[in-house]
Amino acid sequence: MKIQLIIIGNEILNGKIQDKNTNLLSKLCYEYGHEIIGVHFVQDDEISILQVLENSIKGSDLIITSGGLGPTRDDITKSILAKFFRKKLLKSEQATTICERQYKRMEKSFDGNLNQYDFVPEGFKAIYNCVGFAPGLYYNQDKKIFLSLPGVPDEFAAMIRDFFETKEMRARADRTNQIIFKTWHIPEEKIFAELCPNLWQELEKYGEVSSLPHTIGVDVGVILKNLSDQETVYELVLNSPLKNYIWHIGRESLEEVIINEAQKKKLTIGFAESCTGGLNAHRITNTPGSSSVLWGSIVSYSNEVKINCLNVKEETLKNFGAVSKETAYEMAIGARENLKIDIAISTTGIAGPGGATEGKPVGTVGIGISTKKGTSSEMYYMRGDRETLKMRFSQMALYKLLETIRSF
Amino acid sequence: MKIQLIIIGNEILNGKIQDKNTNLLSKLCYEYGHEIIGVHFVQDDEISILQVLENSIKGSDLIITSGGLGPTRDDITKSILAKFFRKKLLKSEQATTICERQYKRMEKSFDGNLNQYDFVPEGFKAIYNCVGFAPGLYYNQDKKIFLSLPGVPDEFAAMIRDFFETKEMRARADRTNQIIFKTWHIPEEKIFAELCPNLWQELEKYGEVSSLPHTIGVDVGVILKNLSDQETVYELVLNSPLKNYIWHIGRESLEEVIINEAQKKKLTIGFAESCTGGLNAHRITNTPGSSSVLWGSIVSYSNEVKINCLNVKEETLKNFGAVSKETAYEMAIGARENLKIDIAISTTGIAGPGGATEGKPVGTVGIGISTKKGTSSEMYYMRGDRETLKMRFSQMALYKLLETIRSF
Repeated sequence: MKIQLIIIGNEILNGKIQDKNTNLLSKLCYEYGHEIIGVHFVQDDEISILQVLENSIKGSDLIITSGGLGPTRDDITKSILAKFFRKKLLKSEQATTICERQYKRMEKSFDGNLNQYDFVPEGFKAIYNCVGFAPGLYYNQDKKIFLSLPGVPDEFAAMIRDFFETKEMRARADRTNQIIFKTWHIPEEKIFAELCPNLWQELEKYGEVSSLPHTIGVDVGVILKNLSDQETVYELVLNSPLKNYIWHIGRESLEEVIINEAQKKKLTIGFAESCTGGLNAHRITNTPGSSSVLWGSIVSYSNEVKINCLNVKEETLKNFGAVSKETAYEMAIGARENLKIDIAISTTGIAGPGGATEGKPVGTVGIGISTKKGTSSEMYYMRGDRETLKMRFSQMALYKLLETIRSF
Repeated sequence: MKIQLIIIGNEILNGKIQDKNTNLLSKLCYEYGHEIIGVHFVQDDEISILQVLENSIKGSDLIITSGGLGPTRDDITKSILAKFFRKKLLKSEQATTICERQYKRMEKSFDGNLNQYDFVPEGFKAIYNCVGFAPGLYYNQDKKIFLSLPGVPDEFAAMIRDFFETKEMRARADRTNQIIFKTWHIPEEKIFAELCPNLWQELEKYGEVSSLPHTIGVDVGVILKNLSDQETVYELVLNSPLKNYIWHIGRESLEEVIINEAQKKKLTIGFAESCTGGLNAHRITNTPGSSSVLWGSIVSYSNEVKINCLNVKEETLKNFGAVSKETAYEMAIGARENLKIDIAISTTGIAGPGGATEGKPVGTVGIGISTKKGTSSEMYYMRGDRETLKMRFSQMALYKLLETIRSF
């Protein structure tokens, strides 16, 4: 199905919160074989919302709105939908039942006077909200579906998942097939201009080609027109010079690949984190199943913690500084010994904006690797603001971790 | 200025990447006093892009596109802009100069044959990209400005900041004034329906009121019509029962408030993290200046690390389990002693999807607090998927941290 998403609310356009629903819906669409053809953010303003509803109708099968269903006065989605479809807002028995079920679950009793959750535009159905209190809305007009969901990411996520699992939606799903080649150590520009100047055109014969540069690394994707061309596409890429830069074929994230491969080899992993400040462990622990391989991480932001919890020598810090190959080296050994793990990766660097010293600009990072086979460390230089640098430092550390796992 | 943002690219609609540019632009607009009136995501497709350009022109002063400026074949923004304005794509000396400067900075030489970066639509200006390689584009038609920037978040961020600092943009900025009351321990519904049923209407006399529920806590905001009403709005809120639920007035994040208040009181802080897996430390270290108060964090995902690095007793784990008040208690003490800090907060819980046991469902979390004055711990129950739960656990831990800092 062709889907338009309309995100209603000043809070996102004000920058107070980051939208998460677009990304979630996109991933689900990919999984279920639907296609998002547009996403629109609009203010809590009747004219803008009516306009974008009008613009979104053409060419789409499903229009989803997110936000504006809560109990406060800026929650105007319901009354605008009523206006758009020229329906009255009426108290609905079906909606009351759903609200009562929701409140009962939370051991509370429902009182429609507080929030008008039992009023829906005539002909609309209320949809059960298994996470929060405001029910969603469903309307089907000439096979075009309108779905209104709360904007709160948890609630939106749970309700859209349920909706995609309905018979009606499953019947209209159309699974596509995409192959993704994940590469590293080569910039996007080089891949198609120097390394494989004809690859893009050759791949285009079999489907839609895309190229997506990440913090480090580029994903090259092909959405196949015919599933039967899968082998041909694999051959084309794996016989090209790009082959040497591919670290994974598939949709799995770096974190998932690390966990899977460490599990298979029964390796335990962990970190000593200075500049990444917990991000490495946070990324790995976001993935279910990580507890079978990640033992822990020692976030050592201060020199004291580097000395006390990672056995870094005071002279090393004094002679070479906290951001150095030498400190990274000792941190990696300290983490491996204290966490009692097979592979330890350390990061110590300058994420900025302060902290730069002569010869060590913001973006400098030392990364150490320690296993029973030995320990090594290396300095790298990257660009970006504080959060980007933390992410780049972390990405490099996780790549090094994957390389190390593969060396076992 | 009234701004429309058009985000071009299949990768975001495919769910492969999360859009960051909307949030960034929104924050900047707030800072500089501009207003985003709409954001639109479109596929790499000529008809859709032309359509959304057409729809966005009305009522806006600045139209920004993000994405589609790179060197690959799906990068079509430049040629579509040329088509939209009925201009030819021409090699421009100004663009060549900018490209050469960019490449020189990276110690490379520019070769337009690889990427056509030196071609721009007639009358357009190329804009220097201080982070990456693809220059931006600028065009001014009857005082309406068109700005095309690369989609890569770092590049977009750096270039839009520079642009907002130009004379032209500064002259057209219009700073608004918003007061934000950050509350906790009370649900949004209760605030305006039970606690202060007239507050919203009273505040509305002085400006635009908004209410924004977060993972934990609700922000109540007022954008003042007249700066002179500031005192009246403060009084209204601080004389209402909402006063007891306000933990901060202002735009600062929980992390920033923690760092500022700990700095003032010269307190050092740290964590023992099991279920939050490094997220607490990651959040604090995202804020510049955090190194003056955050000493470190011990991420103890395995029981072994809890025993070895946090001195949790084996019997405690055996008798009460890793997710228990007792373990949280010992983890907090262990972190305070081993990290040698003033305040340690521990988290041990079940983020799911696996790991639930009888009496301890997914969402159970123990949080411990240890200072020289004493140690305490408490169990909590929350809802959500894995990432949401990690965030909720972390949010509760940081609230407890702030409360503890304030008790000194």
